[in-house]
Amino acid sequence: MKQFFYPESIAILGISPRPGNIGRNILSNLEFSGYKGDIYLVSPRGGEFHGRPIHPSVADLPLVPELAVVLTPAATVPGLVDQCGAKGIRRVIVETGGFSELGAQGAELERELAAAVKKYGLRMIGPNCIGVISTDSGVSVGFPLLNRAIPAGGLSIISQSGGIGLTYVAGAAESKVGLAKFISVGNKLDVNEADLLSYLIEDPQTRFIMMYLESVVQGRAMYDLIRSTDKPVVVHKSNIGELTHNIASSHTSALANDDAVVDAALKQAGAIRARTVFDAFQILKGLSLPKAKGRRLMIISRSGGHAVTAADAAFRWGLKLPQPPPEYIAPIQEATRASVIKLQNPLDLGDLFHMELYVEILRGALALEKVDAVVMVHGYRGPEAEPSRKLLVKVGQMCRESNKPVGLCLLVEPEEALKASQLTDLPIFPFADQAIMAISLAQWAGSVPKPQPPSCGGEMDLERCRRILAAHDQEGWLELPEALHLLLAAGLPVAAFAAALDPAEAARAAATMGWPVVLKAVGGGELLHKTEAGGVVLDLADPKAVEAAAQRMFRELGARRVVVMSQIGGGQEVILGAKQDPAFGPLLLFGLGGVAAEALRDVSLRLAPVDDREAGQMLDELRGAALLKGFRGRPAAKRPALLEAIMRVSLLVQRLPGIVELDINPLLAGPGGVMAVDARVRVAPGAFSPGH
Amino acid sequence: MKQFFYPESIAILGISPRPGNIGRNILSNLEFSGYKGDIYLVSPRGGEFHGRPIHPSVADLPLVPELAVVLTPAATVPGLVDQCGAKGIRRVIVETGGFSELGAQGAELERELAAAVKKYGLRMIGPNCIGVISTDSGVSVGFPLLNRAIPAGGLSIISQSGGIGLTYVAGAAESKVGLAKFISVGNKLDVNEADLLSYLIEDPQTRFIMMYLESVVQGRAMYDLIRSTDKPVVVHKSNIGELTHNIASSHTSALANDDAVVDAALKQAGAIRARTVFDAFQILKGLSLPKAKGRRLMIISRSGGHAVTAADAAFRWGLKLPQPPPEYIAPIQEATRASVIKLQNPLDLGDLFHMELYVEILRGALALEKVDAVVMVHGYRGPEAEPSRKLLVKVGQMCRESNKPVGLCLLVEPEEALKASQLTDLPIFPFADQAIMAISLAQWAGSVPKPQPPSCGGEMDLERCRRILAAHDQEGWLELPEALHLLLAAGLPVAAFAAALDPAEAARAAATMGWPVVLKAVGGGELLHKTEAGGVVLDLADPKAVEAAAQRMFRELGARRVVVMSQIGGGQEVILGAKQDPAFGPLLLFGLGGVAAEALRDVSLRLAPVDDREAGQMLDELRGAALLKGFRGRPAAKRPALLEAIMRVSLLVQRLPGIVELDINPLLAGPGGVMAVDARVRVAPGAFSPGH
Repeated sequence: MKQFFYPESIAILGISPRPGNIGRNILSNLEFSGYKGDIYLVSPRGGEFHGRPIHPSVADLPLVPELAVVLTPAATVPGLVDQCGAKGIRRVIVETGGFSELGAQGAELERELAAAVKKYGLRMIGPNCIGVISTDSGVSVGFPLLNRAIPAGGLSIISQSGGIGLTYVAGAAESKVGLAKFISVGNKLDVNEADLLSYLIEDPQTRFIMMYLESVVQGRAMYDLIRSTDKPVVVHKSNIGELTHNIASSHTSALANDDAVVDAALKQAGAIRARTVFDAFQILKGLSLPKAKGRRLMIISRSGGHAVTAADAAFRWGLKLPQPPPEYIAPIQEATRASVIKLQNPLDLGDLFHMELYVEILRGALALEKVDAVVMVHGYRGPEAEPSRKLLVKVGQMCRESNKPVGLCLLVEPEEALKASQLTDLPIFPFADQAIMAISLAQWAGSVPKPQPPSCGGEMDLERCRRILAAHDQEGWLELPEALHLLLAAGLPVAAFAAALDPAEAARAAATMGWPVVLKAVGGGELLHKTEAGGVVLDLADPKAVEAAAQRMFRELGARRVVVMSQIGGGQEVILGAKQDPAFGPLLLFGLGGVAAEALRDVSLRLAPVDDREAGQMLDELRGAALLKGFRGRPAAKRPALLEAIMRVSLLVQRLPGIVELDINPLLAGPGGVMAVDARVRVAPGAFSPGH
Repeated sequence: MKQFFYPESIAILGISPRPGNIGRNILSNLEFSGYKGDIYLVSPRGGEFHGRPIHPSVADLPLVPELAVVLTPAATVPGLVDQCGAKGIRRVIVETGGFSELGAQGAELERELAAAVKKYGLRMIGPNCIGVISTDSGVSVGFPLLNRAIPAGGLSIISQSGGIGLTYVAGAAESKVGLAKFISVGNKLDVNEADLLSYLIEDPQTRFIMMYLESVVQGRAMYDLIRSTDKPVVVHKSNIGELTHNIASSHTSALANDDAVVDAALKQAGAIRARTVFDAFQILKGLSLPKAKGRRLMIISRSGGHAVTAADAAFRWGLKLPQPPPEYIAPIQEATRASVIKLQNPLDLGDLFHMELYVEILRGALALEKVDAVVMVHGYRGPEAEPSRKLLVKVGQMCRESNKPVGLCLLVEPEEALKASQLTDLPIFPFADQAIMAISLAQWAGSVPKPQPPSCGGEMDLERCRRILAAHDQEGWLELPEALHLLLAAGLPVAAFAAALDPAEAARAAATMGWPVVLKAVGGGELLHKTEAGGVVLDLADPKAVEAAAQRMFRELGARRVVVMSQIGGGQEVILGAKQDPAFGPLLLFGLGGVAAEALRDVSLRLAPVDDREAGQMLDELRGAALLKGFRGRPAAKRPALLEAIMRVSLLVQRLPGIVELDINPLLAGPGGVMAVDARVRVAPGAFSPGH
């Protein structure tokens, strides 16, 4: 990837002196950004521009440039990329639009382009993008004209939209975090977000990563990368609703991902998810500040009302407001003669008009061991402007010196806000809510613990699992006895059961397992889970009853087998399931069972495998988690057993990705442990065929 | 109230030529705002200021001013207000702080102040506030110095914080909605938010009302007022979390209200709740636009990515994106020679550089019958600035002419944003998310239907209810038989039951009602609801069993009576309850019953009484509402019966506010109707005593 950002020479295809030619902007941007390498211009008409010769074709170039940037009509692009490949160029950025995002004709062109890329094994960013920027190398090859310098800094941006990407480039400046690298990925025909993320994680200039995505192509790779790095990664994944798919598929051929899965994966990986551009701007501001070491916040405000709203925000974000010690309060008390305010946290300085004292108040707050971060709400007008501006400069210095974040909010006229933001290296937040959100999110950034090996205890017999999985029907479903045996082979507790081929055998099996028992019909997908159809009969208390019920199942329902199962009671019903997600791979689902919880859709999702901590989170984040923890005097479920079951299922579907779908519903969770009493399992066709 | 805003003469108490005297700002503000009435200055030292005499006392004034504004040390305030009263002044604004918000000593002063107010029956705003502003009368008596004119408009602001109040005054300008009146209510010792709301609802200058509240004193009155008016009311109620109470009680002596109740009341009243200052600013912008007549939105964007995020926002806010007809698309198609974009809604104009065409595109969109609102995302730089600025002016004109809202978002440098906002009378939103939120909320503003008389069918025997309610114990609890009879008298269905004084009577009663029956011990609060203690026995199937169970209750539990109840099965358990809220009066609660739903806290709240529509909303907004509507083939509960039960309870607690607490748990809701099987009722001590 490095050659995209640090090429020694660049060829621009599609530049011409013709008025309205936007390819010229690429040259202007390179010159404006101070790119030091060689630049070659290519256009069939030849001629010259800005004192540089225009070469009629790539073949005519005097040497092989390290990077080619293409902005020519879509129809010409596949041919030109082929020429680049033939010339020996290894990196190409195609900015031209008009490919798969525009329908069938464009998709055909895109296939031709893909063929050219593949033929020469070159790497390509785009098509339908606005290129890359690298502030330290002066590479800036987008076609939108830059008319102001982009401050260099630690943020690198990967964007699936050029327009949003440029908005975030402006955000890098406004937030004071500064830009390292920017990549507009467009249709992601070759290079995608995972490739770039992988590069940026290693890039020494990049301290923070921001991704704007409308689709996720390699979700699992992205998840692994985000999880692997300590660099904070902010993800703005849009395209969440039905309405959006239309434009997004037009825009960059995005396919919508299930947002709940995206959300779970990002959270699990430790990414910071921004839901709107505005929120993302605030988060970038938070990243530009020193990282808070804990959740203890001091609020200093010139307005009591703004102090109240700040405390509300602290409450929402789970921050604590430690009370300052008397040593801190005393000097302030002394200096504020008319003591019309209480000295506490939040500190309302409404009555205080000495700006010099503000400096001491902030310095004192930052020096307190029990304070991890400060939010300061300041407002001024008229004669207070000059001393306030001096104060702002000092606030920035104190923030850096103390290495604690100061969320600065200014209540001033818009003109003054502009002026003030140029005086300080601190970002300025609109109001305390935004500052507190930003500090909270930035504090957690990248702080997800590394995954631990699931602590399941005991082994899983994967070979046995594989053999069992081979016994599925045409649609890939296991029948109930095989599904239950799969769970046993994976080390999951299952209620005592036996499969029987005739009523007498069923009765004999029941007699050995104690009473009462449940009888379940087996035979073809249709009977599965049909309690209503008589496929499941409960409360059978003697061999005769079992035989009679089995008789009916064989005769009336056409069952091929029956399962006799020990009928166990008590415990909370939970659902434990898994499926293969097209983008993110094996995905776990855990929730409360029973009809009520199902109607309430109270479930948690994680990518598999999960470790002990993550399995615990799945349990704890359920709204109805209390039901598993001894609600109203009922016995609590045995937590370690529950977590072990979650981890075992997660390992099973991760090790055997041919399991497309798995559902243990219900799993009974009681004080003694857990017990599966029903299961459905589907495998990918052919995944476990005997000859496979 | 009118004299606070339109006084013919004003006295300022606390002005002096001494440096640092902030009372002088009040005079400056009055002069700056063009107040035309007479102004009198009062200070014990006398002298003169700005060519105006300073009168040594209120008594010395040559006439009785209509309004007195007090900003003197707290200790002097009660005496001065007394002097005002003695002089015959009827309206006083006390801006001085240092009263109950500062603790015991201040609270004592506040009591003295209250006494002075009461003695003369005058009306007072404050203390601890920054006064009022009325743009059309030029009244502006706050002590913070105004240094820029406040544009007049339709927004009136009531604020419990001076600082936040001034922030919203700035918001009135930034949002282009303009200011009518501003009131800082401070400690609300006399005039409170309900008094002011009532006045502003009648005030012809006020088209929209914004309230910032840290506490709600007269919640019910506020609810009734908001509900009664068609003027949109935006409420920013802060002080929601534990952390906040500390500062708020210091700030304006606010007592926190239960936020769930506040939220329910505001929603029911049709108020628009803003949760942050930033969100409130966006909502004000939405109010400054014409009101959308429906939910059909057209998105026009220069960036495909911003179009995607706009469509996401439309999805979140429940808006529809109608597809434009071919007549609309054709001319655009023609004009965009290089058709690298799809013409649809959202409309991505990335490739279009003719600003004149943008005007036509917007005009066409606004002319479409199927479009109620437009969000336009525009960005420009360099040579496009001039044509874009012309475009902005036209966008504003078209918005007013079409009488449809245009949410304008500008992606430009901050300096240009400032300049642009001065060119147009439209508010400018940061990004599409904010524009869509604002238009959505402003569209719904004030649109809650008027409450209908609850359609209960049949009468409630309130006299009988009152007589039953007299039979409570010392803590105010009814025993079970009386509680059930109260429900019957209110017209609610109750399972067949009988109270018995000995085991034999219980057995006889049971024999008449069919089998099985439930037996419940009655006698003192402790036995209530003690299934665990043996106070409730189920599944009694013959007279002997009843007698034996009753025997145990009388002997072992010390029951004074037992209730025999027909044991009915089936139906979904729901909870229907009510309580008297200190601020909002009778409050209803409805939720799913059973341990699972209780653990999930899935309940809805409303102020009583509720009509048919509101009762339906209570049901529909439950997360588990599906369980009452025939989930997974189970029978649906009879909706009209359920709504009638909700309405009856709401009427009961509204008509008999002495009922402090009422809980029907469970109410069984089945396809045939509803049936109460247990109830708890508590009354206020003395509310229903025989002699009352």
